[in-house]
Amino acid sequence: MSAPALLTDLYELTMMEGYHRTGRIGDTAVFDVFFRSNPFGGGYAVFAGLEQAASYLTRLSFSSDDIACLNGLGIFSRDFLDYLAAFRFSGDLYAFAEGSIVFPEEPIARVEAPLGEAQFVEAALLNILNFQTLIATKASRVVLAAGGRPVVEFGLRRAQGEDGALSASRAAYIGGCDGTSNVLAGKRFGIPVRGTHAHSWVMAFDDELSAFRAYAETYPDSSILLVDTYDSVESGIPNAIRVARELEERGHRLSGIRLDSGDPFRLCRLARTMLDEAGLGYVKIVLSNDLDEYSIKSLTDSGVPVDIFGVGTRLVTGHGEGALSGVYKMASLAGNGTQTPRLKLSDELPKGSLPGIKNVLRCFDDTGLMLYDVIRLAGVAAGEPVDMRGNRVSPHGFHHAAEQLRPIVVDGARVGDVSSLEELRERCRSGLAALSECFRRFDSPPEYPVLLDQGLFDLRLRMIAEIQSGLRKD
Amino acid sequence: MSAPALLTDLYELTMMEGYHRTGRIGDTAVFDVFFRSNPFGGGYAVFAGLEQAASYLTRLSFSSDDIACLNGLGIFSRDFLDYLAAFRFSGDLYAFAEGSIVFPEEPIARVEAPLGEAQFVEAALLNILNFQTLIATKASRVVLAAGGRPVVEFGLRRAQGEDGALSASRAAYIGGCDGTSNVLAGKRFGIPVRGTHAHSWVMAFDDELSAFRAYAETYPDSSILLVDTYDSVESGIPNAIRVARELEERGHRLSGIRLDSGDPFRLCRLARTMLDEAGLGYVKIVLSNDLDEYSIKSLTDSGVPVDIFGVGTRLVTGHGEGALSGVYKMASLAGNGTQTPRLKLSDELPKGSLPGIKNVLRCFDDTGLMLYDVIRLAGVAAGEPVDMRGNRVSPHGFHHAAEQLRPIVVDGARVGDVSSLEELRERCRSGLAALSECFRRFDSPPEYPVLLDQGLFDLRLRMIAEIQSGLRKD
Repeated sequence: MSAPALLTDLYELTMMEGYHRTGRIGDTAVFDVFFRSNPFGGGYAVFAGLEQAASYLTRLSFSSDDIACLNGLGIFSRDFLDYLAAFRFSGDLYAFAEGSIVFPEEPIARVEAPLGEAQFVEAALLNILNFQTLIATKASRVVLAAGGRPVVEFGLRRAQGEDGALSASRAAYIGGCDGTSNVLAGKRFGIPVRGTHAHSWVMAFDDELSAFRAYAETYPDSSILLVDTYDSVESGIPNAIRVARELEERGHRLSGIRLDSGDPFRLCRLARTMLDEAGLGYVKIVLSNDLDEYSIKSLTDSGVPVDIFGVGTRLVTGHGEGALSGVYKMASLAGNGTQTPRLKLSDELPKGSLPGIKNVLRCFDDTGLMLYDVIRLAGVAAGEPVDMRGNRVSPHGFHHAAEQLRPIVVDGARVGDVSSLEELRERCRSGLAALSECFRRFDSPPEYPVLLDQGLFDLRLRMIAEIQSGLRKD
Repeated sequence: MSAPALLTDLYELTMMEGYHRTGRIGDTAVFDVFFRSNPFGGGYAVFAGLEQAASYLTRLSFSSDDIACLNGLGIFSRDFLDYLAAFRFSGDLYAFAEGSIVFPEEPIARVEAPLGEAQFVEAALLNILNFQTLIATKASRVVLAAGGRPVVEFGLRRAQGEDGALSASRAAYIGGCDGTSNVLAGKRFGIPVRGTHAHSWVMAFDDELSAFRAYAETYPDSSILLVDTYDSVESGIPNAIRVARELEERGHRLSGIRLDSGDPFRLCRLARTMLDEAGLGYVKIVLSNDLDEYSIKSLTDSGVPVDIFGVGTRLVTGHGEGALSGVYKMASLAGNGTQTPRLKLSDELPKGSLPGIKNVLRCFDDTGLMLYDVIRLAGVAAGEPVDMRGNRVSPHGFHHAAEQLRPIVVDGARVGDVSSLEELRERCRSGLAALSECFRRFDSPPEYPVLLDQGLFDLRLRMIAEIQSGLRKD
């Protein structure tokens, strides 16, 4: 699964044509991927999509068909099209490990490559990283709200297209979901696949009891019966109880029932009581129906007896946000052999960028809890950290620290170990555990401290002053 | 571009295994696709995705690799896997024409096929139709707000995965957008591709003026210069004006400038004045930066001089909604040769369904304006239309009317003419023109009348009564 070369914005190609004509296309450029704010008003994000981004970079090439299509646009020179025909990504990608907890403004990935290559990969990299990071973050919130109860992702039918489902299943698993309904996601990524049955199953029989019996005969040890086709309390739950007892007589056990409409507070409690009074304490209650972290939290906070949550639409579409605000900004460019930091200002202060080749130092206390991150220039002796406005913050001394951006692709080839999806999921889990509870709050969490090294802060100030004095000179 | 067979929910397959075991898999079933409410709080939706849905149905098959994967799950019988290995969709699809205006509760598509086939295609059909209908609807709103000014879709980098971009470009074009930045969408669907340049182009040069000159030299008759890398008013616009004059001297014309940050009301007006005073009335102003129908409407209502809108994130992710609430419900099933209507109730009244094989009659006045739709049983003499609660509504006499669901796939093969994307776009445009202005309002539009034929209403009431008396008997 690797995005096709033409999955790009036209302007990447017109800029490349321009870089080519002006002799800049081979200059070494450095671009940062970062995002402007945490999605869902939360206190963190879960970085995901990296393996697919790496796969995109290492497999990227234009087919002769692609070149013919571009030629047909009538805006590219033969010379440049020849360049594209031989195009490969020969540069480097540094990034946080996939599944890591990440924060606004810090570089989560860095591309270093000849300018044409570094420019070209912008649109596809952002597409991959923005979406999967969004969904892994959403999933982590849903899973936190579920408080240990399994969450299964059911989003295919309402997802934003085929890949909006497939990549979402992957990201949701990294973020902590326990399985997916999507069979293809199971095949491609090895995610456990799960399912119950639909209302149509019940409607395909003359009555609900016959439908339940037939399903239970088909899957005597793994049936989850959907009880709300007609009326859960009057019909669905009593019929499920009857079938569960019939299964018991034959040495089997009904796995669960699923509720998909109505007031879940009332119906789950009622269902639990009815099942327990029938001696069916082992029959699980699966709840679905437009759930998200907020509705799940209100259920778990109230102690409503739900055993498994099925979460679809609101998980896989990142309900409430829809997109991570990730951007890709030039940080440095080799003019005549030496790298020169680059800075964007824009007409809005928050849309500026940080200059230079940077890394992120994550600092922990002696219990392993995260204290703060420091963005600093790579290969430069660190100064004191300051906040984004330059205030000295004298942060608590840290116990240990680790640089977060590590080489993923070097000279166009994947380097180092590729983690399994299970390992990415575990990295997310342990990362969340290392994040103080306050940042995991849904309601107005405080801002996790992302600091600038004094050297980086000074460089930025100096460059702003230079640009502004240049503007005044004109 | 056709979804793989395994892009499905596990429960479709477990139900099919059950239908297979109980001898029901070949019974002819009828399922309706419909949605529960208009997206974005609007008064209508634009039906899109049909050609891809038809392509999915006509190409559907399981590879030996797929069968091996399903076998590996350990829950399917050899017999059933053999059935899947030979599986093809042999049934029919009836639907509104793609690009049509559609409304809640009415069937927008209907599948008639052997139960196993009709059941299986649920998840992928919904995935395709839900997403493209959502985005075509969003696009139509953005285009209405733009009031005739071109809208270009720029959404790739923030879209929900690869197909979240590609299908969105297609749907946005149907909904009325004039082009896309997505080169692959241009290649696959023939949509015009458009672009400007990024901030990185400016940052790749020592100063903004050199960057603008170099871009204008590369594309002397089609350059749109992004003016906000450092400061639009102090630097970007003056530099663009200088380059425009230099182009004029060489017999060329600057196409436009693009603003991507800051206050668009102030900056567009200021830019227009500066350009006009420099005698550059022909240089267009392109505006981008998190636009949607609401921000565009406020700009056009205020007469702010914008010539082209570039709309990305909020268009391709369906900002404000994220998913169309489309569902797929069994409407009829052939028990012993004769079709029997089927009905779902659920624990929430709005989550019920309409029984029987139905069509939608759309009624127009003598000026071609749409008056109301009537859902009625196919092949049954029509009674009087009533509203969803059974009230006789004595609607105005209509001038002409047309049945909306027409055969698209018959016996597993695409029938009839396949419209070009341009024709779908034109159908949407003329459909919106036939919809009274009040239903196109963004703010609390009235409900377009979707009526039930008395015969259908009575059938539904009778079935509800039968089901409820059945529940009481138990």
